[in-house]
Amino acid sequence: MSAVAQPLDAPATRSMADALRMLAIDAVEAAKSGHPGMPLGMAEIAVALWDRHLKHNPGNPAWPDRDRFVLSNGHGSMLLYGLLHLSGYDLPIDELKRFRQLHSKTPGHPEVGVTPGVETTTGPLGQGLANGVGMALAEALLAREFNRAGHRIVDHRTYVFVGDGCLMEGISHEAASLAGTLKLDKLTVLYDDNGISIDGHVAQWFADDTPARFAAYGWHVVREVDGHDVDAVDRALHAARATGRPTLICCRTVIGQGAPSKAGTHDVHGAPLGADEVERTRRALGWAHPPFEIPDGIRANFDASARGAAAEAEWRARFDAYRRHYPVEAAEFERRVEGRLPAQWQDTVRALLRDADRAAESIATRKASQQAIAALARSLPELLGGSADLTGSNLTDWRGAVDVRADRSENGGGLRGGNYVHYGVREFGMSAVMNGIALHRGYLPFGGTFLTFSDYARNALRMAALMKTRSIFVFTHDSIGLGEDGPTHQAVEHAASLRLIPGLDVWRPCDTVETAQAWIGAVERDGPSCLLLSRQNLRFVTRSAEQIAAIARGGYVLRDWPDETSSAPSEQPARIVLIATGSEVSLALDAIAPLAAAGIVARVVSMPSTTAFDRQPRAWRDAVLPPGVQRVAIEAGVRAFWRQYVGLDGGVVGIDTFGESAPAVALFEHFRLNTEAVVDEACRVADRTRQARG
Amino acid sequence: MSAVAQPLDAPATRSMADALRMLAIDAVEAAKSGHPGMPLGMAEIAVALWDRHLKHNPGNPAWPDRDRFVLSNGHGSMLLYGLLHLSGYDLPIDELKRFRQLHSKTPGHPEVGVTPGVETTTGPLGQGLANGVGMALAEALLAREFNRAGHRIVDHRTYVFVGDGCLMEGISHEAASLAGTLKLDKLTVLYDDNGISIDGHVAQWFADDTPARFAAYGWHVVREVDGHDVDAVDRALHAARATGRPTLICCRTVIGQGAPSKAGTHDVHGAPLGADEVERTRRALGWAHPPFEIPDGIRANFDASARGAAAEAEWRARFDAYRRHYPVEAAEFERRVEGRLPAQWQDTVRALLRDADRAAESIATRKASQQAIAALARSLPELLGGSADLTGSNLTDWRGAVDVRADRSENGGGLRGGNYVHYGVREFGMSAVMNGIALHRGYLPFGGTFLTFSDYARNALRMAALMKTRSIFVFTHDSIGLGEDGPTHQAVEHAASLRLIPGLDVWRPCDTVETAQAWIGAVERDGPSCLLLSRQNLRFVTRSAEQIAAIARGGYVLRDWPDETSSAPSEQPARIVLIATGSEVSLALDAIAPLAAAGIVARVVSMPSTTAFDRQPRAWRDAVLPPGVQRVAIEAGVRAFWRQYVGLDGGVVGIDTFGESAPAVALFEHFRLNTEAVVDEACRVADRTRQARG
Repeated sequence: MSAVAQPLDAPATRSMADALRMLAIDAVEAAKSGHPGMPLGMAEIAVALWDRHLKHNPGNPAWPDRDRFVLSNGHGSMLLYGLLHLSGYDLPIDELKRFRQLHSKTPGHPEVGVTPGVETTTGPLGQGLANGVGMALAEALLAREFNRAGHRIVDHRTYVFVGDGCLMEGISHEAASLAGTLKLDKLTVLYDDNGISIDGHVAQWFADDTPARFAAYGWHVVREVDGHDVDAVDRALHAARATGRPTLICCRTVIGQGAPSKAGTHDVHGAPLGADEVERTRRALGWAHPPFEIPDGIRANFDASARGAAAEAEWRARFDAYRRHYPVEAAEFERRVEGRLPAQWQDTVRALLRDADRAAESIATRKASQQAIAALARSLPELLGGSADLTGSNLTDWRGAVDVRADRSENGGGLRGGNYVHYGVREFGMSAVMNGIALHRGYLPFGGTFLTFSDYARNALRMAALMKTRSIFVFTHDSIGLGEDGPTHQAVEHAASLRLIPGLDVWRPCDTVETAQAWIGAVERDGPSCLLLSRQNLRFVTRSAEQIAAIARGGYVLRDWPDETSSAPSEQPARIVLIATGSEVSLALDAIAPLAAAGIVARVVSMPSTTAFDRQPRAWRDAVLPPGVQRVAIEAGVRAFWRQYVGLDGGVVGIDTFGESAPAVALFEHFRLNTEAVVDEACRVADRTRQARG
Repeated sequence: MSAVAQPLDAPATRSMADALRMLAIDAVEAAKSGHPGMPLGMAEIAVALWDRHLKHNPGNPAWPDRDRFVLSNGHGSMLLYGLLHLSGYDLPIDELKRFRQLHSKTPGHPEVGVTPGVETTTGPLGQGLANGVGMALAEALLAREFNRAGHRIVDHRTYVFVGDGCLMEGISHEAASLAGTLKLDKLTVLYDDNGISIDGHVAQWFADDTPARFAAYGWHVVREVDGHDVDAVDRALHAARATGRPTLICCRTVIGQGAPSKAGTHDVHGAPLGADEVERTRRALGWAHPPFEIPDGIRANFDASARGAAAEAEWRARFDAYRRHYPVEAAEFERRVEGRLPAQWQDTVRALLRDADRAAESIATRKASQQAIAALARSLPELLGGSADLTGSNLTDWRGAVDVRADRSENGGGLRGGNYVHYGVREFGMSAVMNGIALHRGYLPFGGTFLTFSDYARNALRMAALMKTRSIFVFTHDSIGLGEDGPTHQAVEHAASLRLIPGLDVWRPCDTVETAQAWIGAVERDGPSCLLLSRQNLRFVTRSAEQIAAIARGGYVLRDWPDETSSAPSEQPARIVLIATGSEVSLALDAIAPLAAAGIVARVVSMPSTTAFDRQPRAWRDAVLPPGVQRVAIEAGVRAFWRQYVGLDGGVVGIDTFGESAPAVALFEHFRLNTEAVVDEACRVADRTRQARG
């Protein structure tokens, strides 16, 4: 099955490893910044994997059946850039010379979308491992969904490099435990066990028996491999196949191997070696070539273009055979791995909104979300749901959801197909695994937890935004409205703080119809979305067809003020815009009548997504929020966020403290998140405006 | 050493466990909300620990040498409330009847400061375990610092209850790995191994061999204890003493034990049993008493008041003997556990500010922070520093810092004393451990990582704010100014989003003097603080004595506009306030001259802490930011945050996208975070104002 040639001899592999070393230290030296220690230490491991095992085609980094390679210890980016350059990807040597410079294809840490062949963005430690688990999970599910007897069109492996840092991070536990439980047998992790981290020798702060730990997760563990012996690593990689379990290969290495004075010390981790040590390294390695010059023979040994093209061609021939036997499945497979929505998608959208509108139900938006999921799942088989052990609370399951679980009935283990992942109580792991699934392509992952626990996953949400992965995060129990569980569980700052992450879409819908549109927006988006949903029932709001269409804009007029009366301007009532989201929209609507009685006419703007609204043209935004008209925002969260919409003179009804444990109804009164407070605030703002005029 | 009496017989312990059960299910039933499954399942474990091992005095929950008890699976709060009530704490039965009601002392999850005897706030899973590690670490360090031959005034244990959820969370890995490495031998964790979590039987998503995993961390593990056998748990607790390592006791239990129909199912986890099942449980347990009535005999068996008072009295006698021999140490011990600052604190403050001002150094604020730490450490021996494996980058160490590490030289293991913790690459674990240290009292913990990785720790920061622990989080590399490491490492939304957490103080100082004041503010505060520090050098700013004193207010006038000229109002130049933080203060200062040339006089307000500024009286805030004068904010972060200070018509110079990998100087130009941009924005705002007037 392996698409690689006969092993090269020892001198050849040694020179390949040294080429990776020299590219790394010369690039770091040129940039005057970077991390040489890891590339020097993992050079032989990289050669063993890339020369003898990795199935890939440098000419087509998007080949669906390529093996996935993840550098979870992303600070060693130059190792990956060296590999990509030398094996034939579109990464010229000039890009390596511009390592860490503005707009180069060689940023400080690997970034997917910037560099051909980079599968995921890494640097924040531990998350690459979880991304790899997601990729391996996607592969296993896709294989079970699309392969047929005699037709294995999905059959690739996922390889992950990790260092001590990745394995100290908590997310390594979450990801490895899940991978072991699900028996993701095509996942192989290579551990750079060099005993050094930034603070020095790890023994003082990291004394785990890591092989025993991974064995406890049900992994196949290959212990004490000499990480500087290409053949030894090669043997371990062979041993990782067909074990029925994920494999951890523990490679003993010397950080900075090859640098005569600095090898084995933490000085070599994250700073240039310096000209003297670079020169000493050159001599010690017997490397006679100037910086960035690689002899043709070594280049030839690395070049995977021909065999990669052949491997893909062979696969395409097999895929054509598959297409002849299974034309529907083949077309669906292509649609899925290309991330296209189905042809009838607009019908789905229309039906979803129409049905929600007709049903006119006053239910919790988490329940509305569950209905949307069920409707979407019928036309989007790529939906891959899940929850961090809160399925019954997040309402992330649906009729037709099939649990993904390990197959314990046969020899060889592996995974049963399905479309619902019980991620366990692993919010961060879940989110980073979802990112890996989305990066792999073939599935559209969504996963749930309570909004307050988005904190646990926060950096994975940020990474999703940075990578533009289509991950959908379902965050229920979105405010003090969850009631008795108290302040630890009540989000007050989370809606606002998630909206601050660049590129992350955030929806906080007010009823069933807005929830349906939030889901539509998330599915259609080329990037991640968070859906903030209520535990408690929310009142259905009637809308015109135009208003339903306007939800997608993130903010729109839900109830407008009456037309201007013909009285003189001085006698016209004060006008105000009430801006509300989610559970607070009903408070705004209920304030219209008492405000009118107080001589203030109110427009109600529903703002389910400030992030979508902010992307609208100015004309739309000004039409919704007319400049010069005072505004009051209402949201059961921190108030400061809303000043960007209401200004210094507007009003905000919100909550700037932590919540309390009590029934939800009592809490909304206690914190004055009620119609009375909206009326008071609107009157205060209107009075101030009148005084300023008068 | 144990301060408890002879074991009770089996019927007595059984009735005690059943009393805990009935209190829990009756309170949940009354609240119509809560989690009965865990209290039913852990009742015997609780009796074994509280009746036979726990050293505590219900009459004085602040006794420094009490054992610490942490309910990491905090949803089982009623178990703890039952224990506190029955053992004699000031928690009347009426409070249990008001479980989960507004302003009761029995909130949905345990909250420190609300309920006497609750040591930490739990609910967000896994963090209680890490808090417990912090408490055990503080105990071990305090013992080594203060105990003397023949005088063991610090000698208590830490007990933690955990469930499957805690052990699935990544933070359990970070905390347990650190505890094992540091050989925290007085930490005992009791694992409620019931095989059930919210989604059902955990085997499908959590197949770890947990005992093997903890053995891999170097823990002493007691396997397969019958969690419903008080004597078996008692024996395991005895076995946990004097092993030289932390202990995990794995208790096999049945969730909801005692509820005839629902025991062993996930239905019993988080919802009331319902009247029928409560009645069946009463019958099954043979419990003849009405809700909230506990027979006197059972109360007497639980009551720990007398033996707790005796235990504390015995300790006080020993402490008096200690005081006679070591009066200085005794006074210092009392100061430390009471959390008082030293008598000469104001001298320290004055010297710190004076020295920073006189030195007038233009250095990175992370370097300024290191100088502040070194100065503070001389008069604050309670400072307990650390970093998540970024010591050399965070600059969190100082001359006089002594590494905390396990003592591997003797039998029995344990910890060497010290004042600097290498936390390893464990940001979340570090932060929650710091919270545990702060809650224990005796030390003032601080710990460092990069600002972007505050994401990893975010919920621990939130918990610190909710609990008001004096934890100091040192976040360096605070913006794109870190340069080449790129967008994964460049904080853009973090300063803003941390400021949204209620009760969390955030400082972003602009030079050495502001950094010194940030540290002073953090040390003096009764709650947590984050210090956001630059990697790059920042220019020293000269200040008057009044200005130095004003830094503590969070925002103050650094350079004022000139006095009004005598020309006619129409000829007076436009006035503007430039508000800046951290590295951007110098941009604002440099904009004064070009703005003056453009006919705009600018005041520069330095705003190192918006959170401190927001607490100032309105008179101060209006004096600094005069109402009606236009403002421009400058910060290398998301712009939306600053609208609360500049309004809709003001200006903001910031960055709303992710960063890039490049040298810092190139990035500030690329993102137009420079003086030219400040001038442009100020001119734009001033022109608009002129037009509006004209």
